[in-house]
Amino acid sequence: MKATVIVRLKREVLDPQGDAVRRALGTMGFTGVGGVRIGKIVEIELAAGDRAALQEKLAKMADELLANPVIEDYEIVLGS
Amino acid sequence: MKATVIVRLKREVLDPQGDAVRRALGTMGFTGVGGVRIGKIVEIELAAGDRAALQEKLAKMADELLANPVIEDYEIVLGS
Repeated sequence: MKATVIVRLKREVLDPQGDAVRRALGTMGFTGVGGVRIGKIVEIELAAGDRAALQEKLAKMADELLANPVIEDYEIVLGS
Repeated sequence: MKATVIVRLKREVLDPQGDAVRRALGTMGFTGVGGVRIGKIVEIELAAGDRAALQEKLAKMADELLANPVIEDYEIVLGS
């Protein structure tokens, strides 16, 4: 089963990489670009199992390795 | 309008970062983890407009700045 963990900087955390992309897009002539935020997408191939248990396992993975809980939030998408 | 560009390494391109995460998860005791691939998610706030035109604009942004077409593919999600 495929699972996806999307890791994003928390809203209140500055995103210099996103800002650099926003400015670069402006310089390149793209108009109408407001904010840009950049995150990570972690796609994991998992042995099939009970969805609730997998969800819990993925949350543990995110808490312990994939995301930095101080500055990042994460979202889990199962079976995408 | 919010748009999302998901940038992934092409299937045939090795992902050492993903492999490192897979190994780390194994070391931490998580079982049943097959492959791990890591990509980027770029969330862009755009001035509203014709969806087809926005889609085209985003594809141009991805081709010219957000993705490296040699090793990466991208997916555009409008209005998510």
